[in-house]
Amino acid sequence: MPATNPPDALLKLIRKGNRFLLTSHRNPDGDSIGSELGLARVLRRLGKSAVIWNRDATPDVYRQLPGSERIVVGDEPPAGFPDAFSAVIVLECPSLERTGHEAQLKGVPLVNIDHHLGNQLYGKVSWVDPAAPSAGEMVHRLAHSMTVELDADTATLLYLTLVTDTGGFRFSNATAAAFDAAADLVRQGAQPARVAHWVYESRPEPMVRLLGEMLQSLELHHGGKIATALLTPEMFERAGATGGDAEGLIDTPRSIAGVEAVAVIRRKDDSHLKVSLRSRGDVDVEKVAAAHGGGGHKNAAGCELEGDFASVRQRVVEELATAVDHAAPPAEA
Amino acid sequence: MPATNPPDALLKLIRKGNRFLLTSHRNPDGDSIGSELGLARVLRRLGKSAVIWNRDATPDVYRQLPGSERIVVGDEPPAGFPDAFSAVIVLECPSLERTGHEAQLKGVPLVNIDHHLGNQLYGKVSWVDPAAPSAGEMVHRLAHSMTVELDADTATLLYLTLVTDTGGFRFSNATAAAFDAAADLVRQGAQPARVAHWVYESRPEPMVRLLGEMLQSLELHHGGKIATALLTPEMFERAGATGGDAEGLIDTPRSIAGVEAVAVIRRKDDSHLKVSLRSRGDVDVEKVAAAHGGGGHKNAAGCELEGDFASVRQRVVEELATAVDHAAPPAEA
Repeated sequence: MPATNPPDALLKLIRKGNRFLLTSHRNPDGDSIGSELGLARVLRRLGKSAVIWNRDATPDVYRQLPGSERIVVGDEPPAGFPDAFSAVIVLECPSLERTGHEAQLKGVPLVNIDHHLGNQLYGKVSWVDPAAPSAGEMVHRLAHSMTVELDADTATLLYLTLVTDTGGFRFSNATAAAFDAAADLVRQGAQPARVAHWVYESRPEPMVRLLGEMLQSLELHHGGKIATALLTPEMFERAGATGGDAEGLIDTPRSIAGVEAVAVIRRKDDSHLKVSLRSRGDVDVEKVAAAHGGGGHKNAAGCELEGDFASVRQRVVEELATAVDHAAPPAEA
Repeated sequence: MPATNPPDALLKLIRKGNRFLLTSHRNPDGDSIGSELGLARVLRRLGKSAVIWNRDATPDVYRQLPGSERIVVGDEPPAGFPDAFSAVIVLECPSLERTGHEAQLKGVPLVNIDHHLGNQLYGKVSWVDPAAPSAGEMVHRLAHSMTVELDADTATLLYLTLVTDTGGFRFSNATAAAFDAAADLVRQGAQPARVAHWVYESRPEPMVRLLGEMLQSLELHHGGKIATALLTPEMFERAGATGGDAEGLIDTPRSIAGVEAVAVIRRKDDSHLKVSLRSRGDVDVEKVAAAHGGGGHKNAAGCELEGDFASVRQRVVEELATAVDHAAPPAEA
C-alpha cells in the first residue's frame, strides 16, 4: 500500500490557523501521546500555538516525555473552547466516539489524522493512511511536507510512536517506511536508547524479582505446547512485589519455542484464583475464559476459578489442550 | 564516526578467490551466525563456495536460520584445510585467539571483518569499522559494493544481525545507518516479524528456566545503579541449560529502573569466570573489560577474571562503581 501525502486542505488549514486543539483516543497510548506532543511542537515551530486535551490521564511511563505535564486531562475543555481554536486535530483515533469528547466535539469542524483500518472519516478534513506504521510517522511526513526542521525532542517523540506501535519493530507493520522514518528521525536527533529506556527499561526491581520467582514454577505440558506458571502470595512477598508488578510477566513463558498457549495463575482472594491466558495464532483462549465467566480476545483473555493452585492448574491445562488441538497448526516460522 | 567502505584489497581478494572458509568468535552470537550465513550466501551468489567453521556449536535459537545445519563445528578443520581455501574470512572477532582456532589459523593469511573497538588487526586484510552497528551490516555494505542483489533469506539473515547487536534497536548503536540498512534489507525481503519470532519468541525452555535461576541471584549495588547476577554451574544443571542459553539473559537485570551498569558472571573453566557487562549512556564498560584483557563496546563488553563468584562479583562491582561515578550523569529521562 503506497503511503499517501498529507492532503492540500490539511496543509492550507495549518498555514492559515493560529491556535490548534489536539486530541486522541481514550486511554492514550504511546502513539497518541507521542504524535500529539510531536505535532504540538511542529505547530509551535511554525509560529502557531497548540493545546492537547485528552479524556484520560497520561500513563506513568509517558509522563517522562517532554511537554506531557501540559496535557489537559478530563471532561472539561481548555479555556476558550471552541472559539479560541482555529481547528481541532484528532490524532490516532478511528472514531469520534473513541475520543471520549464526543459531546463537546459534536458540530466542531475536525481534522482527522489516523492510520487505523476502518477509520470512520469523521473529519471535515480526513487524512487516513492504513499503511502508516504510526500516526506519529504521519506527523513526521506532515512536518516534512511543510519543510519544518525537527528539533531533537520532537524527533524523539515521533520516533517513540514508531517503537510503541510496531512493538519495538517486531510486528508486521515494521515496514521499510517505518525504518526510513526511524533513520530520518535519528538523523534529526531522536535517541533510540533514550526511548527504549522510557518504554522498556524502567521496570521496578520487584517486578524483575517476581519474574524470577514465577519462573521457578514454570511447567510445560501437552508436548511443550502449553506453559503454565504460578504467582503465589509467597512469591509476591519474597519479591517485595505488589499486584501491578505482575503485568507483562506472562510474556516470558510465552516466548518459549513451541509454546502455543500460556496460563499464569495467581491468588485473587481466599477462594478464587485469577487465571491469565495468552495464545499464539489460531489458539482461542477467549473461549476457555468465557466458559468460566471471563473474557478478552482470542489471543489474550482471563477468568477466575475456585480451587487450589494444583487443581486449577490441572483443569486449565486440560482446557487449553482442547483449545490447542482444535486450532489450525501454527504458521511456518 | 563516518562509515568506512570495504578496502579494495578485500574486494579484489573476493573477486579472485573461489572457495572461502568463514569463521567467527567462540560462543557465536546472532551477529556471528547471521554475518557468516549471510556472507556465505553473498559469496555463492558471486559463484564462489563457502564453508563455515566455528569452534563452538550454534545456539539453539539460531539453528532455525537457513543454512545453519551446514556449519562445521569443533576443533577439526573442514576437509582440505588450508590448501583448498582461497582465504579464511574471520567475522565479528576482535582477536585471532577468540576464534578458538588459533593453533590451526596461525600462519594462514586471514581477512578480518569486524566492528569491535580494539580489534587487533590480525588480518592480512583488515576491515574494522567500529561505527558499524553489526558485522552483518558490514557484510550488507560489502554486498552493495560488489553489486550483489540479496535474496529474501540473505536479507533476513543480515537484518537479524542488526536486531541482535543493537538489542532490537535499543542500544546507542541503533544509528541512522542501522535503520537505513534495516529499511534496505526489508525492501529486499527481510521479515522483521519472522526475525522477532526467532530471536524473541523461540527461546529454548532451558534458557527461560536459566533466567529464573539467574534472577534468584540478582543483587543491586551502589544505590541501585549497578545490578549483578550469577550463572553458576548448578544453575545450568537445574535448568538443563548449556552455554548458549545464557545469551541475552543480561537484558533482564538491565531493564530495572535506575540501573546504569550490569554484570553477569559465569564459570568459564576451573580457574576463570566470564564476566558480561552492559551499561547505559556514558558509563563505559569497555574500559572495565579492557583492564582485564577483554573487549567489546562502550555499552556492551566482556572479560575473564580469576577467582570465585563472590570475590569476582565484589571486584566487578567496585570497578563498575568507578565507571558509573566517572560517567556523565544519565541524560534526563
